[in-house]
Amino acid sequence: MVQKKLTEVSSQKVTHKAEELAKHQREISVSEFFTRNRHLLGFDNPRKALLMVVKEAVDNSFDACQEMQVLPQIIVEIKSVDGKEDQLIVAIEDNGPGIVREQVPRIFGKLLYGSKFGRLKQGMGAQGIGISAAVMYAQLTTGKPAKITTIIGKGKPAHYLELHLDTQRNEPEIVKDEIVKWNKEHGTRIELQIEGKYLKGKQSVDEYLKLISISNPHSEIIYTNPLGEKVVFARGTKQLPVEPKEIKPHPYGVELGILLKMMKATSARNLNSFLTNDFSRVSSSIAAEISKLAGFSGDEKPSELSLQDAEKLFQAIPKVKIMAPPTNCLSPIGEEQLIEGLKKEVQAEFYAAVTRKPSVYRGFPFFVECAVAYGGDLPGDELISVYRYANKVPLLYQQSACSIYKSVAETMWRNYGLSQSKGALPVAPLVLVVHVASVWVPFTSESKEAVAHYPEIIKEVKLALQDTGRKLNNYIRKTVKAREAAERFNLFEKYIPELASSLAILSGEKKEKINDNLLKILKKQTPVLLENLNA
Amino acid sequence: MVQKKLTEVSSQKVTHKAEELAKHQREISVSEFFTRNRHLLGFDNPRKALLMVVKEAVDNSFDACQEMQVLPQIIVEIKSVDGKEDQLIVAIEDNGPGIVREQVPRIFGKLLYGSKFGRLKQGMGAQGIGISAAVMYAQLTTGKPAKITTIIGKGKPAHYLELHLDTQRNEPEIVKDEIVKWNKEHGTRIELQIEGKYLKGKQSVDEYLKLISISNPHSEIIYTNPLGEKVVFARGTKQLPVEPKEIKPHPYGVELGILLKMMKATSARNLNSFLTNDFSRVSSSIAAEISKLAGFSGDEKPSELSLQDAEKLFQAIPKVKIMAPPTNCLSPIGEEQLIEGLKKEVQAEFYAAVTRKPSVYRGFPFFVECAVAYGGDLPGDELISVYRYANKVPLLYQQSACSIYKSVAETMWRNYGLSQSKGALPVAPLVLVVHVASVWVPFTSESKEAVAHYPEIIKEVKLALQDTGRKLNNYIRKTVKAREAAERFNLFEKYIPELASSLAILSGEKKEKINDNLLKILKKQTPVLLENLNA
Repeated sequence: MVQKKLTEVSSQKVTHKAEELAKHQREISVSEFFTRNRHLLGFDNPRKALLMVVKEAVDNSFDACQEMQVLPQIIVEIKSVDGKEDQLIVAIEDNGPGIVREQVPRIFGKLLYGSKFGRLKQGMGAQGIGISAAVMYAQLTTGKPAKITTIIGKGKPAHYLELHLDTQRNEPEIVKDEIVKWNKEHGTRIELQIEGKYLKGKQSVDEYLKLISISNPHSEIIYTNPLGEKVVFARGTKQLPVEPKEIKPHPYGVELGILLKMMKATSARNLNSFLTNDFSRVSSSIAAEISKLAGFSGDEKPSELSLQDAEKLFQAIPKVKIMAPPTNCLSPIGEEQLIEGLKKEVQAEFYAAVTRKPSVYRGFPFFVECAVAYGGDLPGDELISVYRYANKVPLLYQQSACSIYKSVAETMWRNYGLSQSKGALPVAPLVLVVHVASVWVPFTSESKEAVAHYPEIIKEVKLALQDTGRKLNNYIRKTVKAREAAERFNLFEKYIPELASSLAILSGEKKEKINDNLLKILKKQTPVLLENLNA
Repeated sequence: MVQKKLTEVSSQKVTHKAEELAKHQREISVSEFFTRNRHLLGFDNPRKALLMVVKEAVDNSFDACQEMQVLPQIIVEIKSVDGKEDQLIVAIEDNGPGIVREQVPRIFGKLLYGSKFGRLKQGMGAQGIGISAAVMYAQLTTGKPAKITTIIGKGKPAHYLELHLDTQRNEPEIVKDEIVKWNKEHGTRIELQIEGKYLKGKQSVDEYLKLISISNPHSEIIYTNPLGEKVVFARGTKQLPVEPKEIKPHPYGVELGILLKMMKATSARNLNSFLTNDFSRVSSSIAAEISKLAGFSGDEKPSELSLQDAEKLFQAIPKVKIMAPPTNCLSPIGEEQLIEGLKKEVQAEFYAAVTRKPSVYRGFPFFVECAVAYGGDLPGDELISVYRYANKVPLLYQQSACSIYKSVAETMWRNYGLSQSKGALPVAPLVLVVHVASVWVPFTSESKEAVAHYPEIIKEVKLALQDTGRKLNNYIRKTVKAREAAERFNLFEKYIPELASSLAILSGEKKEKINDNLLKILKKQTPVLLENLNA
């Protein structure tokens, strides 16, 4: 009965309801979306927000300096604001190429705007969200505009802009626009006033800067915290990392919908040249083979092909053997540089590093690097420290959701001379660095805190850990065995006087002489014995 | 030396570099962003993608039926595609109000478009992303358009549209647009062809539909899986849930940047009427109090106030005592309905439910409900099953990242008669339902799989668990104690013949008579004794 009554009422009302609902339908700008969901971008609380602001700006500075192939010098300043204890002023300045005046407003005042999105080339930033999200956060919490100074070269004017982000339209709003004097040849400075909290310790700005200076030993970072303490993370090397080159997509990684889109958009006149021009590793003979397998001559005009045609191509691709994608789109830290970076910031007695050869997942090249710092002043009775990196950026949050952490915890460290409870980190005086780099790192969220669980990535991380584990084990075995051997010889040395006494009684020789001779033999033989042990 | 050389080279190049980089700067559409990052929306793999498609469509159907105050009848059909084993056709049909023709393309073919975003009212959908993301996923993996049929009332035409989502521009592209015959008074049907995988078991479509029918016992869901099996999740009640009303924001939850934006956008002529009109729970006397505390008369024109003025207001608000926000924006399942829902799908011997009073976090009202099904056929030697819900939608993924799970694991279930290892779920024949509902549920990702760790929410969940735990404990104590008492009486009964023999010898009475009398007394006294035990 209740249902009947309801249906009667509603059949009269129904037209009105759909039309009434239609009035509330509207477009939501991406900035409105992220204003409401700013925790998705990592701006959860004042402490983390401070880290995010520094991180987004510093990551951009590194990318800019790499584009220009200049040794980065990055200045980070955090100051408290008089009378507002929950607010901070954050400034980041670099010696990168600077930004042309026309681009400044949108780079800083518009979400989803940038030069790096979709580009197949390793870099720190990629989404076109980070720095404008920081600007949006500043304005949301303090109402203050972003202040940007930039200069693109000697003799060029330095521009100073103050701007807001209009969250309703996702467009920049310029408040001030001046030419200023700036005693700098090229570079960019951004200053934001935010609701933030400065604390030292784990997951702090201090830790982030220390860790990024390990993965970028060619950089100098000059850091002043709100307490007025100045720390310089000095350059460990003047060698620039390899410059990564942009590559084209590999056929094995393309999805049907993307293939269809590429076919419509290509400037290639026929199918075979589309395949060779728009993809990497497709030679004309491979293109011909794909076309033939899919039932085409190769002369078809790509934009005139149908969905069914695209499906045939899509199904033909995996049947043809195509060389793995080029890996010059990647830029490893390098074994030597990794060790340099670690030595700079972590005091230990043994260092080792491994850079693995690139591998591929979903058509994207990637590689894994590992390094260890062992012994010395590091605490021996605690769980090891794992420093996770993706494209040279340290990851400080969501450790347990990250496939890097998972791989470390699942590795059998007992095989490499460390003690470990099942499924946990080992206990040892050890700092472990793991770096995953790719043209496209699959993060579990926009805030880029953890690497998603791709089996190919986990496998490579584990192999890198094993390679590093073996180096570590060699060292541990050597030192531990050497120590044990030394202890044994010491013990023997202790017994020499007693032995000498007994032999003196038996032989009638002088005790002192026997004693000296025995000592001589022992000393002479020790290196040989040690040598044999370590062989 | 290396650095010097580098600087020389670059100072010539620097202008070119910034200008060269500027050429690559571009706007990225939100659909391009999510095409590349579709795992952020939950479309990680073919199995999960199938669930997401069903979920987004079904959630929308529920919201539509609620808007119309009609008892939902939802049809879900999943079919395999001939010759394509990795593809599925998914159709979802509802009896909601339908959609006016003009709105169809953008609702299904544009990300971030909808009627529910930012609305302070409990609903299943909210982001304007879900269903268009499903359309985008379909086209990305199979190239096929979405097929939509909709009718808004008796005598109105039924519209049939086929459409794509142009991911470059984030705009719909209509492929077909017809008026068709549809034997339905009002409602909407969507059909998508996707790359998907159908599997039963945990995290399956089957499980999702079962769980959503528990939290919506007023709905009927008719489900056909790819194996041709038809399951009807029948209606457990014909009573509609309370219709939630939209509320205005509460002053305690507003951020400075939002306050400033509201001041610029308001139609109110002066500060006091802005405060009373644009916020909930602000009376004229409270408005006057806020204005006065901030140093204003209340007659100021809001749009003419500065950032500094807004800051003064912002700081004054928390100093004034304002009533908690209204809670008619919420719609609980209700204790009775929750039990109805559980009884429908879970066979057990005892059911109980608790709906807590609403509470507030960051100015948003929310509440928690809990229910248990205990005993019967449920396995007693396994960890309990926890069914997590947010705004009546079951959450199937990322259990361990969810504050609901955390709260359950941290509750001391031993206090309520269950066995439990520290930090783990208890072991018992128990299904536990936890429902968190709010005008704005803080999810940890766009795919809405886990509730973020807000202390206020965790506290309320724990209180709800304790309330439910006490009810459960009462039942367990009663049944367990009754069982124990019964066992004791059985034992006594066994000894009666022996006792009768001894008494017969002592008294000279007949053994049989004493035996019968003792039995009579025991039977008469048992209910009284049991009664006392349970008091």
